Amino acid sequence: MNEQPVNIPSSADIARAAERIRDVVRRTPVMRVAAGELDVPVPVTLKLEFLQHTGSFKVRGAANTLALLRVAERGAPTAGVCCASGGNHGAAVAWAARAANLPATVFVPDFSPKAKTDIIESLGARLRRVEGFYADALAASRDHARREGAFHVDAYDAPQTVAGQGTLGLELAEQVPEGQPVLVGCGGGGLYAGVALALDGRNRVIAAEPSSAPSLTAALEAGEPVDVEVGGIALDSLGARRAGRIATAVGLSLGTKTLTVADEDIAAAQALLYQRLRIVAEPGGATALAALLAHPEDFPDGATVVVSGANATPPSSTGR
Amino acid sequence: MNEQPVNIPSSADIARAAERIRDVVRRTPVMRVAAGELDVPVPVTLKLEFLQHTGSFKVRGAANTLALLRVAERGAPTAGVCCASGGNHGAAVAWAARAANLPATVFVPDFSPKAKTDIIESLGARLRRVEGFYADALAASRDHARREGAFHVDAYDAPQTVAGQGTLGLELAEQVPEGQPVLVGCGGGGLYAGVALALDGRNRVIAAEPSSAPSLTAALEAGEPVDVEVGGIALDSLGARRAGRIATAVGLSLGTKTLTVADEDIAAAQALLYQRLRIVAEPGGATALAALLAHPEDFPDGATVVVSGANATPPSSTGR
Repeated sequence: MNEQPVNIPSSADIARAAERIRDVVRRTPVMRVAAGELDVPVPVTLKLEFLQHTGSFKVRGAANTLALLRVAERGAPTAGVCCASGGNHGAAVAWAARAANLPATVFVPDFSPKAKTDIIESLGARLRRVEGFYADALAASRDHARREGAFHVDAYDAPQTVAGQGTLGLELAEQVPEGQPVLVGCGGGGLYAGVALALDGRNRVIAAEPSSAPSLTAALEAGEPVDVEVGGIALDSLGARRAGRIATAVGLSLGTKTLTVADEDIAAAQALLYQRLRIVAEPGGATALAALLAHPEDFPDGATVVVSGANATPPSSTGR
Repeated sequence: MNEQPVNIPSSADIARAAERIRDVVRRTPVMRVAAGELDVPVPVTLKLEFLQHTGSFKVRGAANTLALLRVAERGAPTAGVCCASGGNHGAAVAWAARAANLPATVFVPDFSPKAKTDIIESLGARLRRVEGFYADALAASRDHARREGAFHVDAYDAPQTVAGQGTLGLELAEQVPEGQPVLVGCGGGGLYAGVALALDGRNRVIAAEPSSAPSLTAALEAGEPVDVEVGGIALDSLGARRAGRIATAVGLSLGTKTLTVADEDIAAAQALLYQRLRIVAEPGGATALAALLAHPEDFPDGATVVVSGANATPPSSTGR
């Protein structure tokens, strides 16, 4: 186990991140959908984060990290940056690195879908496929950083990443009513931790995990990050084997609840988003909605649902 | 020529339409996109109307028409409603008719795409395919109305349809700055006329037409609706052979400009919306953006662009 203290970003860190990335990331809108329209008897507010650059929220953390790196006294590393990713974080790092004129190397597990690896390559990053899972890509990225002197941009367990994702929570604080629960999809927990810290009790934040990759659920039960088996439909976005220390600490301190959802519920949520709203969501991007669809009784007054990513092959049939 | 006076909806008619349909249609959000992001050197505000029920703005006019029909003294016709449509208006009428528990018959030209006819049929309307163009479907619907006693819901040249589409303009009046030009795609001109009337000079409204179906452009030149040849990529949504008398009268009275765009520019705008924002737009839904991309010099301070429809087969490749 890592014995270093966990560095949890403060409200001020998140506010500074928002200031830092304001001109580069998009402020994504919310949309209110009436009770019944998404097959649940409660109103739903959708945070349309799939409209973000590179198709996911991940650019918030990547842009914040690279902005900090640029202003650090030592200057940006000539060996550039590297990261491990199921695909979305890699696309985000590639995007931010291109803007910063830094070389980027992205390690992905070999199942990372073409919808994601295409973006990474089109942004000029070097793509390295690693046999295994996200955890194996993570080891490769850390190794690369050590060997080459590149800066490893962590996908979810670094304070600057979490602070960046938290800027989504600051937007929600201006967009949704106080007290309305907020559902976010959860892999390693960077988005969950950032949004929970940003909302700071204004809204309860619930982490939704695939039951096929329940890393934060297991960490909160164990009281610390533990390895879980990962697989399933959202593996390429929520497939962290072990939740972040930051997310775990935040979840434990807030007494946060997780909701786990079956793969078929995630697929149904994806289909529903396209049929009712023409929103193309990837499985990880639809997992928060899937949790609401599976547990509407937990949200009698409705909920805000973050639609966090859209990098998937779109469905082929429309609907009402 | 029709010698009856043109019945142009008033501001009060549009305000009443908004009141009437407020609980059934969605208020769609806008999103600001910075200069450069869509390959034009000006900021763009996107009105995300593709998130509307049935995937297009058409439900606004259909819901308003059917609500008025329901309250009319004579009561709703037992033979129900009918309409002619390239597909989107038909889906909208089917949707509104289902909510009103009325039978609906939708006449479509035989090239109407499956993405649209599937919606019409899934909503329980009777689908009738007509050989030829929208104009042929229109003749069939009018004939059906006469024979069966059904109420023909006009796609763009009835005041209640135009007033319904105008409710999108009332939303824009709350969402975008005064003076910012608004670009809308234009077929028969129902959306154009409604939005221009609703904004009432607060914002200039520009009708964007495919050069392959320039009905309003020709009408404004001729001083009255005239037949044009129709074809091209957006035929199923903007393929009216003759602009509406209402849209023509509105355009002439306001001295409105149209912009015509080539099919390849429309396809490029569609691709750009998916690559940069993961928005699936149909050709007609991307035509307003295409006009901005083709004529950025006309909009030195940027523009609002209505993304009005999403009923198309989504593209298969992602982007940044």
